Amino acid sequence: MTFEMNEKTKALRAQLIDFMDEYIYPNESVYEKQLNEGDTRWEVPPIIEELKEKAKQAGLWNLFLQSDEHGPGLSNLEYAPLKEIMGRSLIAPEVFNCSAPDTGNMELLEQYASHEQKKKWLKPLLEGEIRSAYVMTEPDVASSDATNIQTSIVRDGDEYVINGRKWWISGIKDPRCKIMILMGKTNPNADRHKQQSMILIPVGTPGVEVKDYLPMYGYDDAPSGHAVVEFNNVRVPVSNMILGEGRGFEIAQGRLGPGRIHHCMRLIGMAERSLELLCKRANERVAFGKKVSEQGVIRNWIAESRIEIDQARLLTLNAAHMMDTVGNKIARKEIAMIKVIVPNMALKVIDRAVQVHGGGGVSDVFPLARLWAHARHLRLADGPDEVHVETVAKLELRRQAEIAKDLPTVTV
Amino acid sequence: MTFEMNEKTKALRAQLIDFMDEYIYPNESVYEKQLNEGDTRWEVPPIIEELKEKAKQAGLWNLFLQSDEHGPGLSNLEYAPLKEIMGRSLIAPEVFNCSAPDTGNMELLEQYASHEQKKKWLKPLLEGEIRSAYVMTEPDVASSDATNIQTSIVRDGDEYVINGRKWWISGIKDPRCKIMILMGKTNPNADRHKQQSMILIPVGTPGVEVKDYLPMYGYDDAPSGHAVVEFNNVRVPVSNMILGEGRGFEIAQGRLGPGRIHHCMRLIGMAERSLELLCKRANERVAFGKKVSEQGVIRNWIAESRIEIDQARLLTLNAAHMMDTVGNKIARKEIAMIKVIVPNMALKVIDRAVQVHGGGGVSDVFPLARLWAHARHLRLADGPDEVHVETVAKLELRRQAEIAKDLPTVTV
Amino acid sequence: MTFEMNEKTKALRAQLIDFMDEYIYPNESVYEKQLNEGDTRWEVPPIIEELKEKAKQAGLWNLFLQSDEHGPGLSNLEYAPLKEIMGRSLIAPEVFNCSAPDTGNMELLEQYASHEQKKKWLKPLLEGEIRSAYVMTEPDVASSDATNIQTSIVRDGDEYVINGRKWWISGIKDPRCKIMILMGKTNPNADRHKQQSMILIPVGTPGVEVKDYLPMYGYDDAPSGHAVVEFNNVRVPVSNMILGEGRGFEIAQGRLGPGRIHHCMRLIGMAERSLELLCKRANERVAFGKKVSEQGVIRNWIAESRIEIDQARLLTLNAAHMMDTVGNKIARKEIAMIKVIVPNMALKVIDRAVQVHGGGGVSDVFPLARLWAHARHLRLADGPDEVHVETVAKLELRRQAEIAKDLPTVTV
Amino acid sequence: MTFEMNEKTKALRAQLIDFMDEYIYPNESVYEKQLNEGDTRWEVPPIIEELKEKAKQAGLWNLFLQSDEHGPGLSNLEYAPLKEIMGRSLIAPEVFNCSAPDTGNMELLEQYASHEQKKKWLKPLLEGEIRSAYVMTEPDVASSDATNIQTSIVRDGDEYVINGRKWWISGIKDPRCKIMILMGKTNPNADRHKQQSMILIPVGTPGVEVKDYLPMYGYDDAPSGHAVVEFNNVRVPVSNMILGEGRGFEIAQGRLGPGRIHHCMRLIGMAERSLELLCKRANERVAFGKKVSEQGVIRNWIAESRIEIDQARLLTLNAAHMMDTVGNKIARKEIAMIKVIVPNMALKVIDRAVQVHGGGGVSDVFPLARLWAHARHLRLADGPDEVHVETVAKLELRRQAEIAKDLPTVTV
Repeated sequence: MTFEMNEKTKALRAQLIDFMDEYIYPNESVYEKQLNEGDTRWEVPPIIEELKEKAKQAGLWNLFLQSDEHGPGLSNLEYAPLKEIMGRSLIAPEVFNCSAPDTGNMELLEQYASHEQKKKWLKPLLEGEIRSAYVMTEPDVASSDATNIQTSIVRDGDEYVINGRKWWISGIKDPRCKIMILMGKTNPNADRHKQQSMILIPVGTPGVEVKDYLPMYGYDDAPSGHAVVEFNNVRVPVSNMILGEGRGFEIAQGRLGPGRIHHCMRLIGMAERSLELLCKRANERVAFGKKVSEQGVIRNWIAESRIEIDQARLLTLNAAHMMDTVGNKIARKEIAMIKVIVPNMALKVIDRAVQVHGGGGVSDVFPLARLWAHARHLRLADGPDEVHVETVAKLELRRQAEIAKDLPTVTV
Repeated sequence: MTFEMNEKTKALRAQLIDFMDEYIYPNESVYEKQLNEGDTRWEVPPIIEELKEKAKQAGLWNLFLQSDEHGPGLSNLEYAPLKEIMGRSLIAPEVFNCSAPDTGNMELLEQYASHEQKKKWLKPLLEGEIRSAYVMTEPDVASSDATNIQTSIVRDGDEYVINGRKWWISGIKDPRCKIMILMGKTNPNADRHKQQSMILIPVGTPGVEVKDYLPMYGYDDAPSGHAVVEFNNVRVPVSNMILGEGRGFEIAQGRLGPGRIHHCMRLIGMAERSLELLCKRANERVAFGKKVSEQGVIRNWIAESRIEIDQARLLTLNAAHMMDTVGNKIARKEIAMIKVIVPNMALKVIDRAVQVHGGGGVSDVFPLARLWAHARHLRLADGPDEVHVETVAKLELRRQAEIAKDLPTVTV
Repeated sequence: MTFEMNEKTKALRAQLIDFMDEYIYPNESVYEKQLNEGDTRWEVPPIIEELKEKAKQAGLWNLFLQSDEHGPGLSNLEYAPLKEIMGRSLIAPEVFNCSAPDTGNMELLEQYASHEQKKKWLKPLLEGEIRSAYVMTEPDVASSDATNIQTSIVRDGDEYVINGRKWWISGIKDPRCKIMILMGKTNPNADRHKQQSMILIPVGTPGVEVKDYLPMYGYDDAPSGHAVVEFNNVRVPVSNMILGEGRGFEIAQGRLGPGRIHHCMRLIGMAERSLELLCKRANERVAFGKKVSEQGVIRNWIAESRIEIDQARLLTLNAAHMMDTVGNKIARKEIAMIKVIVPNMALKVIDRAVQVHGGGGVSDVFPLARLWAHARHLRLADGPDEVHVETVAKLELRRQAEIAKDLPTVTV
Repeated sequence: MTFEMNEKTKALRAQLIDFMDEYIYPNESVYEKQLNEGDTRWEVPPIIEELKEKAKQAGLWNLFLQSDEHGPGLSNLEYAPLKEIMGRSLIAPEVFNCSAPDTGNMELLEQYASHEQKKKWLKPLLEGEIRSAYVMTEPDVASSDATNIQTSIVRDGDEYVINGRKWWISGIKDPRCKIMILMGKTNPNADRHKQQSMILIPVGTPGVEVKDYLPMYGYDDAPSGHAVVEFNNVRVPVSNMILGEGRGFEIAQGRLGPGRIHHCMRLIGMAERSLELLCKRANERVAFGKKVSEQGVIRNWIAESRIEIDQARLLTLNAAHMMDTVGNKIARKEIAMIKVIVPNMALKVIDRAVQVHGGGGVSDVFPLARLWAHARHLRLADGPDEVHVETVAKLELRRQAEIAKDLPTVTV
């Protein structure tokens, strides 16, 4: 019934904090500079590969993996404080081979892929040699409802033929991205949750067309980007099917829980860094004759931010612990709860920091505007708030209906 | 790094839940009825003494006490889930001898009183034979700032003479209330925090005048009530001084931490019960052709309430754990944080429940309006929100100033 | 396209403000004192009849009436600033014969009653000689949906027989209350909005039983009160039917618009008075070495309150103007909008004032706690927020659907 | 005491709406396309000059000007509904020669410039032949407090020499921008509000260096942009001084009122367009088996948005009317009130629309993300919220202190 980190986590966290101080924060501007120096912004800044090498050597690698074959093997509860630290910089997670969508894809492959599939794609992903994309969302339907998906996967002899139109395919423009995991429908007439399948499509397969990227609040998120991708009679061997036809929904469900909590852990780090910047700025800046940090409303923002961050962190740790002990399915209410509250908390805290930074806050002088835009899209990615609110409401009403059997009904 | 209750707490909690189901909830209306049957409402409803006897025999007695001489001896972290259960009914805490202001007064006496003082006043309080009042707040000054206090305690030979005017003296109208602990100034010229002293004044001492009670949103809170009390040349022996002249501020500080967290624990129980009532009602009521629980906004309220309660509970447990491990002084930021957020959380949840109950919600058909009023006064009792917000801001800025030394300053 | 009051309104407003200063505010405590001096609180404090006489002589009488036969004959837009002034004191509206439910009942009778009915009941109401009750809400159904109503009105020869159970019948305990207007069903098999009828039932008719009053957040609202009323085989002559069988829903709709806007006007006055008290207190009180009014958060509350009140007033004036020019039916979106926003605005402003007044705020030392409770019940009276939100959403979506015909659909 | 537009405004508004439908909305994508086709994004898309010509011929030109020499000559109250319509598209205001910073600069020149200055710079601005920049904000100080400004203007014979560093100079990268109005200090030892002066600096004057642009949430706002500009020994003739040395603060104050209300009018248009898009999308999109517009929370958002927009519009009209009738100085509380509430209102409404549009909302498929970023910077431009909140609080407390003289002080 206590809340402390165990020794293993403490040690890794201390190591990670040092690494961030020494290698990450000072290189954020280097990364940005290299990105602008290339012929296009769709080339990988060399600094990132240098940092990856250092992180690997330091053993700060694949921390997200629960199995201990390719990393330290951490539970969700152990990983949470580490992912929070990484979340403080948008360039950090990749350095530790802990960035979406690769993490979710690696987990998926480890859990559901065949031996051959693992050898070909999981291994280089674990080594950080290639990157990957997760191809699910479609522009024409509300994709938060997976049963809406329209992309078709049709068997034709030894091949599957894929046709469809997807968007928000993050990372697809990265030159290192070599493999896509696509969700489509193999059988539109099957049971509602048996229609979908997941299939591996190597980048460069004929018929795959990457259209222009989708900016996010004006940011291109280069070199990864988010793009519309069209699939026109794309053919892959039948051995690229993951787990089997009709298993797509099941795989997607398994992938989502960890993905959502990883986002939340990162968001807590973003909020924490924003509060740090807010306090620093408020202490340095004078307006109308007194320090900004001495002004009542700013002090309120600081106190509220402190409280909101701490509440969100505890709720996230609680969800992590539930996932570790009773499993992702039983913990789905707890996962939905953090997916609702944590992005909204982070947006509030970051926005207060933006306001205190004035013109610098809304521009690129500080990382705040970019952090805000990133956090904002996390109210939509992996399901919009409304879907998760509905999950919480449904499960809570179900629980309360049990309790209510014993309650008297009041009459007037 | 986990959040479960230990076995001791689990067992007591199960016992407590059963006791609430069997004896407390069914007797809430009995209590109200007996209160209205007396000649005045300032008589003790007999049911309360009957229930106290049952609780004592069940060993559910003095659970708040950390020493195990007069109860099970629980840490704050162990007590929190129990006090939450008690908090679900406004009549419950007293039944388990766990109600304010007696709890704080007992802790104070146990910690600071002389052997003689303990024998005379602490013992019957621990037995639940008498009740007590805590006499601090004054109507003419902002009492959240203890240095404002004006009541004088002047030594005259073997006696102290007390003069002043106090208000919000809770419980003073209860016929079982036998002793007051008063804070006043013995030396207005001493250092700012050495001017105050605490002294014991038996109820009935000449010169003490209890004026009319202060209603709280229309509630008289009988038979305890809150009243204005005047002290005109009230004389008590010097042996009634607690700890010594000039120690009042120090004692007050020691009393406040536990008092504040106990309120928070109770508020979580109030919120939880309100959410329970909300869900039950929403499932039973039909408007415009569908169940209230199927309407989108109500589902949002349910999800938000679930999230807000769970966050508040975790933050409260965290504060409890800090108090247990690093002490109330170091944990004062954590205590301030919950004192800000928990009453406001409870007010939101209760108010949503009120709205779903319509006319019954704002009246006495359900306990909701009364719970709301009680929770509302807890945004003021033991310091208004603003004071605690300021504490959080000050301590967070201090912490951040340490961190900031290592941060680079950005120039444009 | 300007916002000034016309000369007629300005003159009446100035007169009203003087009257409030001279007669109303100083007598609020007299009223309370007389109320407590009677044998029960259900007797009329004599001061109220004295003040009514003065108001009548001053021509500040029946200001709510749009016809100029019994008052100055004001439009909604002219009445709004006057009702706001009255709203500043809970005892004021009655003094000017402008208090609910009499106002709505008088409007109803003037518009729909027969000559005989008017002579018997409308005339003494206009003179302020009697009071009345409006008997609509039922405890067992969501009465915001009028089609839920279950009380039966069955014709039996020359009489109608009424059976049913009603609650929240305001004013019924006032000894001057002589007549009830009840809504029930004459034909449960008719079209959905033709089942209901309204009928006059004199207080004291056999079979009418007034049960205990319903407190509102602990307030009894004496001498008017709110009560449960039972109707057991209550018989009245057929001539007591208003307008005719099956016309009840139509009459109710006509009554509601003005009733709702009158509440909103009053609420603006309550908020304005609360802000006045807040500022006064903040200027007088010192905490932690500086005036409360110099503390940042309090200044924020003041600015926000000023903005919120002014916005709410303008929206209310806009609704009043719409009602005057295009009629209550076309203005129903505007009426719904203020019915949602104004009580919530008032609650925020009053609650801030409560907080600044500390213990005095939640008690009866200042009028704030009582004002809050009154404002809170107005989020339910005449339909809960949720019903009005739904009205606004429905009408706005309808309007937007028209516009949308001309908008291009974006495809990705 | 009514709220209708007069005939003149109605006619212009109808004309404007038609123009927007015919020429503006369909050319938003053309504008964006041309911007991307140029060698750099810092060239003017030809479509804008074509549209300007059309607007000029239609008489929809210089609508912001109160004098009727160069346009229709409208009061603030008449202009407000027109500027709202223009505000619906980020490219529209320029088409009607009604875009910042030119509008403020033209007003400034018209009011304070010499005949020669007007001939040289005001005339081509009124004709839409050139554009201009307003050079005030500095990166190193809190520029919301104008007395902080550090740029120096030193007389040297027949010239002034300017040295300093400015930022957020909007429009400076536009190739049509020919003139800057700079605020600096001529005498740092004069009275606090007499130190500043305003001076004209032609673009291209030696010593002026335009540094890289400042993105705003990732947007470059090309071809206008916002940039850092350095002034190193920049020399202009003494005849370029506006009004005289030491008059800068006075001029700045005169410029601010209209600038702020124009922003607010535009923001209402942005919010209105966003609500339109929200409703359209919600009606077209299906999720989990029902239309998004039928889901409870979305309906709440629609109703709240409707209410919030209407309140903000009325408050803005009220401020416009005050400015027209009692002058900008007396109306400064009203101006501050809208500058606080309107950007925040718009942000809420736009963000709800973003959420309903999912991935398209945060990207460039719809104009929403860009509108949001634009609205967000208006919580900082022309003074951050906090400064205006403080203005409202100060003026309201001053007003209340007058009232309070007549109020009794309550003692307990």
